[in-house]
Amino acid sequence: MIEIDGDRLLADLRALAAFGRRGTGVHRPALSTDDIAARRWLAAEMAAVGLDTRMDGYGTVLGMTPGVRRAVLVGSHSDTVPNGGWLDGALGVIYGLAIARAVRARGALPVGVDAVSFQDEEGTWVPCLGARAFVGALRPAEIAAARDATGARLPDALAATGLAGEPITAPQGRYLGFVEAHIEQGPRLLAEGRRIGVVTGFAGIRRMTLRTTGRPDHAGTTPMNLRLDASRPLFRLAVWAAEGLAAAGGAHSVWNIGAVKLLPGAANVVPAAGEMILELRDTDPAVLDALEAAAVSAAKRLAREDSIDLDIEVTTRLPPIATDPVLRAELEAATGDCGETALLMPSGAGHDSMILAAHMPAALLFVPSIGGRSHTPEEDTDPADIILGAQVLARAVERLCQQKAVR
Amino acid sequence: MIEIDGDRLLADLRALAAFGRRGTGVHRPALSTDDIAARRWLAAEMAAVGLDTRMDGYGTVLGMTPGVRRAVLVGSHSDTVPNGGWLDGALGVIYGLAIARAVRARGALPVGVDAVSFQDEEGTWVPCLGARAFVGALRPAEIAAARDATGARLPDALAATGLAGEPITAPQGRYLGFVEAHIEQGPRLLAEGRRIGVVTGFAGIRRMTLRTTGRPDHAGTTPMNLRLDASRPLFRLAVWAAEGLAAAGGAHSVWNIGAVKLLPGAANVVPAAGEMILELRDTDPAVLDALEAAAVSAAKRLAREDSIDLDIEVTTRLPPIATDPVLRAELEAATGDCGETALLMPSGAGHDSMILAAHMPAALLFVPSIGGRSHTPEEDTDPADIILGAQVLARAVERLCQQKAVR
Repeated sequence: MIEIDGDRLLADLRALAAFGRRGTGVHRPALSTDDIAARRWLAAEMAAVGLDTRMDGYGTVLGMTPGVRRAVLVGSHSDTVPNGGWLDGALGVIYGLAIARAVRARGALPVGVDAVSFQDEEGTWVPCLGARAFVGALRPAEIAAARDATGARLPDALAATGLAGEPITAPQGRYLGFVEAHIEQGPRLLAEGRRIGVVTGFAGIRRMTLRTTGRPDHAGTTPMNLRLDASRPLFRLAVWAAEGLAAAGGAHSVWNIGAVKLLPGAANVVPAAGEMILELRDTDPAVLDALEAAAVSAAKRLAREDSIDLDIEVTTRLPPIATDPVLRAELEAATGDCGETALLMPSGAGHDSMILAAHMPAALLFVPSIGGRSHTPEEDTDPADIILGAQVLARAVERLCQQKAVR
Repeated sequence: MIEIDGDRLLADLRALAAFGRRGTGVHRPALSTDDIAARRWLAAEMAAVGLDTRMDGYGTVLGMTPGVRRAVLVGSHSDTVPNGGWLDGALGVIYGLAIARAVRARGALPVGVDAVSFQDEEGTWVPCLGARAFVGALRPAEIAAARDATGARLPDALAATGLAGEPITAPQGRYLGFVEAHIEQGPRLLAEGRRIGVVTGFAGIRRMTLRTTGRPDHAGTTPMNLRLDASRPLFRLAVWAAEGLAAAGGAHSVWNIGAVKLLPGAANVVPAAGEMILELRDTDPAVLDALEAAAVSAAKRLAREDSIDLDIEVTTRLPPIATDPVLRAELEAATGDCGETALLMPSGAGHDSMILAAHMPAALLFVPSIGGRSHTPEEDTDPADIILGAQVLARAVERLCQQKAVR
């Protein structure tokens, strides 16, 4: 079995975290000076392992095993959110480097291991910019129009990096698949006492804005029974959701009411209008449909009961995407080879592997996030879990290469 | 019985509405050019009726019956909210003028009728500025510090009017009481088929801000049962209130949740913090206490059940103020004398008579508001109801004067 050097792995992760370090966290948004410096360092490390390494005009770094026609692609992204954590996608990037190094150390194989760090998964400019360019799904107009939160233009930021060269795209027919590792960014693994998660699919997202219209009566002079309070059906829907959506959804369905607003928003005026944003997620399209139908039906019923006008706008409909069953099975088997039992779980968040999954077999492995925290300097994972995750991923890659060899 | 000239009453109301007219509404905030012009017109009308008339440095206009030691004070305020309606306090001011005129036409009485328009009841600068100055309850520091919504300073605005003179204060021992008429600003009279409301008292107000603290988890990756959603106890409290506050309160208790906010306010982040403003009103202090205790107890229980931190800040505690029982009885009797039955009801809003009630007998009469609307250009009252209200108030004043005469 391919062996991962745990000390080297942790040292490499710490070396990468030095680029943009802020206390225990890392500030390395895509195309920042620290991001580009980190990517140059990564490219040098990949080259040192013996990979044919390129960085493209966006900053995506790809290290390819020379002399092979087919390969397994391993990696993630090394950009971070502002004031993010030290692991996130960096974990999967260093896993790719470590696995390529370990496989190269074993000598030539018929199937190679390529390592990658995609650009801007976090969407400082365009979410999953590098992964989308890699699969040919990025439109030039998106690049031209993109701005960051400060209003800076992406074309200007790209020019400022001094990088050049065509976007790296996946060489036709080369990849058996893409395997990504990432921190879970949630609390389930630790809550269920597991050290490895294997992602069954990426949850689809439905996001809807519910707008209600009532009447702005004086809250001191209007008896309760004569009001048309626009907040009532929204509050009732929120309370209904706890049981109603649980009943309509599946075991892994999640939902969130992240924002609510009442107008005019004065203590002494009955709310004349309300707005609430409801988000629904599940990996099963049928369950998503059921959740949406239940929410819409309940909202309409409650608004009708309260004689309040209701408008529902579905603003987002992202379909669920399944991971590849063969790769997923290899990740599960590799976890068993390492003495652990994987937790099969959906990914509630998007990742580079979600983009690649529409174009090649792709799978995603999770290691635990302490306290479920991510995108913050407190983000962390037990070093033993970090090393185990790399070992499991290396074993899965090894199994894939062996399987290919006997096919 | 004193007779009110209905045509003249309506003509005077329309003449007053011409100052600051905007379509069907009126824009006449305190100390605006239109407000001062309207007050000069009022002073001239009062003088024409034979009243000793003064306007003070704030713009409060008082017309006093000459040659009497005691009088009934009748009036309200002629300033409006921005883009308000044509009646509101102007109704009660013109009632005062009309009643003084009718009484003067009948010849001298031992008890006079004084007419008044207090300044800035609507609080463009200081709510009930004129009424508070009249009873000696306005502190100079409030004048010095007051600004309007644009940031203009009250002392500058006062200087710009060119008005001078000491604030008018109530002459010691002169007033049997103050009777005010106002539009209801709510829908109860029309809903209950009554044309006259007699106010039993002004509701006290408790206003509290409820702040909850949870944890900002990723709404895609955090299972429902592992969240600390700061919105939950707030939403549950809002739904509880509909039955819980009804059970804790009295027949006329009202409450309102006019504002709610969730932080960070993103669709995909579990609310980490929430804020909700709850207002409670009742004319009975014991009922107010019961409402507050019930709301606080429910909020604490719900927050505890949801494992969410809760902080409750009571930001406003205005005590209820009763109207004078003798004046109230005269208003009821006068309504009967005019062939109607008064609806005894609380006032959910504050008025000049609420300020005066702490210093002399005071009472308040309501006429219906069509659709319950006020503070908007659509504000209106059936002309027959406008005339009836004046007739009832005139009759009440007559009864008071007679009663005093026989005392």
